[in-house]
Amino acid sequence: MRRALIIGAAGMIGRKLTERLVKEGGLDELLLHDVVAPRPPQASFKVRTMVSDVSSPGEADKLVASKPGLIFHLAAIVSGEAEADFEKGYRINLDGTRLLFEAIRKAAYRPRVVFTSSIAVFGAPFPEAIGDEFLNAPLTSYGTQKAIDELLLADYSRRGFFDGIGLRLPTICVRPGKPNKAASGFFSGIIREPLAGQEAVLPVPKSVRHWFASPRAAIEFLLHAAKLDTAQLGARRSLNMPGVTATVGEQIEALRRVAGEAAARRIREEPDATIMKIVEGWPRNFDAKRASALGFRADASFDDIIRIHMEDELGQRTPAPQRGRG
Amino acid sequence: MRRALIIGAAGMIGRKLTERLVKEGGLDELLLHDVVAPRPPQASFKVRTMVSDVSSPGEADKLVASKPGLIFHLAAIVSGEAEADFEKGYRINLDGTRLLFEAIRKAAYRPRVVFTSSIAVFGAPFPEAIGDEFLNAPLTSYGTQKAIDELLLADYSRRGFFDGIGLRLPTICVRPGKPNKAASGFFSGIIREPLAGQEAVLPVPKSVRHWFASPRAAIEFLLHAAKLDTAQLGARRSLNMPGVTATVGEQIEALRRVAGEAAARRIREEPDATIMKIVEGWPRNFDAKRASALGFRADASFDDIIRIHMEDELGQRTPAPQRGRG
Repeated sequence: MRRALIIGAAGMIGRKLTERLVKEGGLDELLLHDVVAPRPPQASFKVRTMVSDVSSPGEADKLVASKPGLIFHLAAIVSGEAEADFEKGYRINLDGTRLLFEAIRKAAYRPRVVFTSSIAVFGAPFPEAIGDEFLNAPLTSYGTQKAIDELLLADYSRRGFFDGIGLRLPTICVRPGKPNKAASGFFSGIIREPLAGQEAVLPVPKSVRHWFASPRAAIEFLLHAAKLDTAQLGARRSLNMPGVTATVGEQIEALRRVAGEAAARRIREEPDATIMKIVEGWPRNFDAKRASALGFRADASFDDIIRIHMEDELGQRTPAPQRGRG
Repeated sequence: MRRALIIGAAGMIGRKLTERLVKEGGLDELLLHDVVAPRPPQASFKVRTMVSDVSSPGEADKLVASKPGLIFHLAAIVSGEAEADFEKGYRINLDGTRLLFEAIRKAAYRPRVVFTSSIAVFGAPFPEAIGDEFLNAPLTSYGTQKAIDELLLADYSRRGFFDGIGLRLPTICVRPGKPNKAASGFFSGIIREPLAGQEAVLPVPKSVRHWFASPRAAIEFLLHAAKLDTAQLGARRSLNMPGVTATVGEQIEALRRVAGEAAARRIREEPDATIMKIVEGWPRNFDAKRASALGFRADASFDDIIRIHMEDELGQRTPAPQRGRG
């Protein structure tokens, strides 16, 4: 019985991953879990939806009662909310994850667990490009919670309770739909809003550099992680995913190239000291050697990241994006 | 009211720290806590002892009810036991620490918290000497728990709930008294037993290199951490303590120099594959730049580490040890 479980299935990544798994086929059952009801897709296999708070006692045990062999754990509250609500952040992002890991341990089987971590596990000061052996020194409660989850993932895997892999996703860009509470929202907003004919606010200087992956690249990371031979990971179970480094200025130049001058003019600079202070502590660039050697592939350029948004979200045909080499 | 609290006061470091605080004076009250009753010393100030399991609900709150301005958190179960008993390790070393941090947060004051972490937060493969920005990739549950505690310490400090500092202690050598359940026990045993006229077993090859500090140096680290201006730490609240790097062969040579050939002959080699496997994953050498720059001082040599044991534990006079430069 090939059974997969997605925790956090109603979120943006969860929905795209669901679509992709449905298209790929090859499962007997897919379990979709979130705190709000995930929309069940039309699929050639059985799909079950489950709604609960995974941080409530006993709920995590229900998720693994049917012993799904593949678990994607995507559920988290975002950085802005975890910073604003200390207790909720620890309850969902730490306790929820630990309860899930404990439930798997007690169910006494050994599924593959693919966990979405974040580059927020890193904090300034940084080297020019962050390597695979750079320390986790998060500057937010969200980053702290993800770093702790990674440590648990590695120890539970070492102990043989499950076979875990953690993916430190770049900032996903262009994030479709409405802005969420993440302080990183503007990185997508300054592309998404102009492409939709709307004005976007830029709260930081154009010199700010950051690290990006398209939603499409992120889904490929998750699928690759699900199939990877984890013996190659040794004890270090979390990986910096490859991405595209770009300044905000370079993002805007790419928008101008791909969508024209009119789009680029819809960005209004409106400096916000609070957001700037948060962003200053964020990674700008990585040397993602390990993940690249393990076959994870980045987008080819920021131009392609924009084209992927136009194709996948706006239904526009663009020249085919190139697959990058990490 | 100058009130200090030692959690883990009945352990070796706790007892020596208590002695030192009593000798130094300058307190109004000292609270000594452990799971077994700490022996209260004769002191010029008030001493209170408290016995409880800090991982039991409500107990941590009692510890901080009197709002001690200085808290030494030394309590932990050791590496061997945390590896043998998964649930107990997480309960004491993770939940106990988190409950303490939560109790301080809820008591709404801002004490200095000095936390003893460990070089077990690091795992092989290593660079020649581990620097201040090397990743935490523990290979034991104990190391995992300490690394998680460090992340919590940093986040609670960043949030302003307390003013924390974590000390990654080298392996304490020569540890007095009977062997404990730590897999590192033989590093002390091969010095302590021969000095007491007894045979010692060496379970690893003489080429094994490790990182050491005397109990006396460890107490000085704790006192220095209690007084340090933590503004110098920034967000990175845990430090690799300076130490002495030595192979087991160099330990034995030092023993020969300090205590003579007869002592060195009392070591019997008896290879133990299990211990060797654990020790292979341990750090061998550090470049403890940050801690040295902040005024933490190592022992001058392994010879001095032996002399300190002879003076402090065996009441023997030896040529005065030199203070090292980290």
